[in-house]
Amino acid sequence: MNIDMIRAAADRARGHIRHTPLLSSPFLDEIAGRRVLVKPECLQQTGSFKARGAWSALSAMDPDQRKAGVMAYSSGNHAQGMAWASAAHGAPCVILMPSDAPALKRANTAALGAEVVLYDRARESREEIGARIAQERGLTLVKPYDEPLVIAGQGTTGLEIAEQAQEAGVTQAEVLVCCGGGGLTAGVALALEAEAPGLKVRPVEPEGFDDTGRSLAAGEILRNPQMDGSICDAILTPQPGDITYPILSRLCGPGLSVTDDEALYAVAQAFLRLKIVAEPGGAVALAAALLRRDQIAGDAVIVTVSGGNVDPAMFNQALTRHAGSSDT
Amino acid sequence: MNIDMIRAAADRARGHIRHTPLLSSPFLDEIAGRRVLVKPECLQQTGSFKARGAWSALSAMDPDQRKAGVMAYSSGNHAQGMAWASAAHGAPCVILMPSDAPALKRANTAALGAEVVLYDRARESREEIGARIAQERGLTLVKPYDEPLVIAGQGTTGLEIAEQAQEAGVTQAEVLVCCGGGGLTAGVALALEAEAPGLKVRPVEPEGFDDTGRSLAAGEILRNPQMDGSICDAILTPQPGDITYPILSRLCGPGLSVTDDEALYAVAQAFLRLKIVAEPGGAVALAAALLRRDQIAGDAVIVTVSGGNVDPAMFNQALTRHAGSSDT
Repeated sequence: MNIDMIRAAADRARGHIRHTPLLSSPFLDEIAGRRVLVKPECLQQTGSFKARGAWSALSAMDPDQRKAGVMAYSSGNHAQGMAWASAAHGAPCVILMPSDAPALKRANTAALGAEVVLYDRARESREEIGARIAQERGLTLVKPYDEPLVIAGQGTTGLEIAEQAQEAGVTQAEVLVCCGGGGLTAGVALALEAEAPGLKVRPVEPEGFDDTGRSLAAGEILRNPQMDGSICDAILTPQPGDITYPILSRLCGPGLSVTDDEALYAVAQAFLRLKIVAEPGGAVALAAALLRRDQIAGDAVIVTVSGGNVDPAMFNQALTRHAGSSDT
Repeated sequence: MNIDMIRAAADRARGHIRHTPLLSSPFLDEIAGRRVLVKPECLQQTGSFKARGAWSALSAMDPDQRKAGVMAYSSGNHAQGMAWASAAHGAPCVILMPSDAPALKRANTAALGAEVVLYDRARESREEIGARIAQERGLTLVKPYDEPLVIAGQGTTGLEIAEQAQEAGVTQAEVLVCCGGGGLTAGVALALEAEAPGLKVRPVEPEGFDDTGRSLAAGEILRNPQMDGSICDAILTPQPGDITYPILSRLCGPGLSVTDDEALYAVAQAFLRLKIVAEPGGAVALAAALLRRDQIAGDAVIVTVSGGNVDPAMFNQALTRHAGSSDT
């Protein structure tokens, strides 16, 4: 894994992956006590940054491999990214998805042309099922984060952040990244190491699912004690990846964590102040920026909003709880 | 009014006004029966394109004029744009706002540092009240649309559309613009006339408030029979402007109109498929693209989503009505 792979992924993505803007609001700055710059990857193709990694993987395959097809396991965003990138490349695509994934993500994945196979997140190993189906059908498995081409694709987010932060006059800041298996976090960290060394990545996770933060503190890979019970489904992973962890360990600052309700608060603020739709797991970094000001350093903070694929009922809940007063 | 004024406004806006992206979704393309390219000005500073016109006006004033202060009358989005641009230029700002404007818009305008004065939209003339206060306090009145510098600022949206449509390979298309007094519509039409003559602007209005569409059809300025009764508050105006109408008449195709419920449908689709927050009045052009396919020509259509300053209760209503099923 190196910066050249990220630059190559950016070249292959040109004209297909969106350059998302960098947003801000004086209202968020006031809550956070510093300038807040938001990279809204919910505006990316398929509603999350995962389209970047999927495009990177598909675009780097040789034609025969693409023609045989690909498979992925995902809570939903990697699934949609893979379905979209596969369709655009003319590659058959099978998605293995937990049975408790949001209905919207399942429906979208199928509508984008992929075959969806469900499994029980608590009792079955997606790695085992995925490997079996891939072998039976001759599909190439594209892992959601522990795959160099995927990390390289997610890292293109970091190339854009480096350029946009400089345009905004920000050269020293913490960059809070919503962290599941660490693909986005590692990719952004690698990109910033090369392009904007004054920007320091810190992973943000849901409380109780802070495997990456605890692993970084302990200096070794630790697992989460459980795998369900948070609304932040997009970033629930058992443990940091074998490829992502060493990158995170070398480049990232300490992790942060927020509660589910704090994530919903950030969903509501993103609605009110940025006019973007964030899913809870995609809003944890914004929540940390707004609600952990004493744990963050510097005059500015950069955050990713990593996805926006949220069921309407959950979104309504965020607005009812945290934007209920119409003059909030 | 000419293209040079728009280019000059773009120069003055550099580093202050956002270049909003051009979004799309295969799901929207399928509903519309053609490619749909969306210019999300809800992501602009203050949540609507109005920040462009306000910045244009403030940045062109001489220092003494700015120091004496400005005033504006507005249903809310021009108000927020003016409050924001005034604060950035150090100019005192008084906003005259209808008493039925959404609470969020009133609160935001005040929080951005402006003094808010309310009036009764049905019984009082904002023009008269505005002129009186402006004279009493020595303020410069910045009209919401019938003002060349404001039209020039809104026209910078058109410069971006011209460039982004070309990047997307679209050189012939209708451009549906949410239309109140016609400032955005006229500005975009002037910009496209110069930069992308194959792109043809058409105004979109709420049914029953289609003064511009009826005026274009009649060849003379016609008024709306009433001034309230639509949730599309951002684009309810009595009649096309004296400056905007001749531009619209020369450059625009026939108007389109949609119902309030169709606007809410578009709000829900923008949530589901683009992950942006649109207000009803800002979603009428998207509604027309999705629901008036037989009245639109060409393989692609470009639409503005002109603002996102919607009360949470109204947004919940859009999701409940039109995204109620969690697997929509």
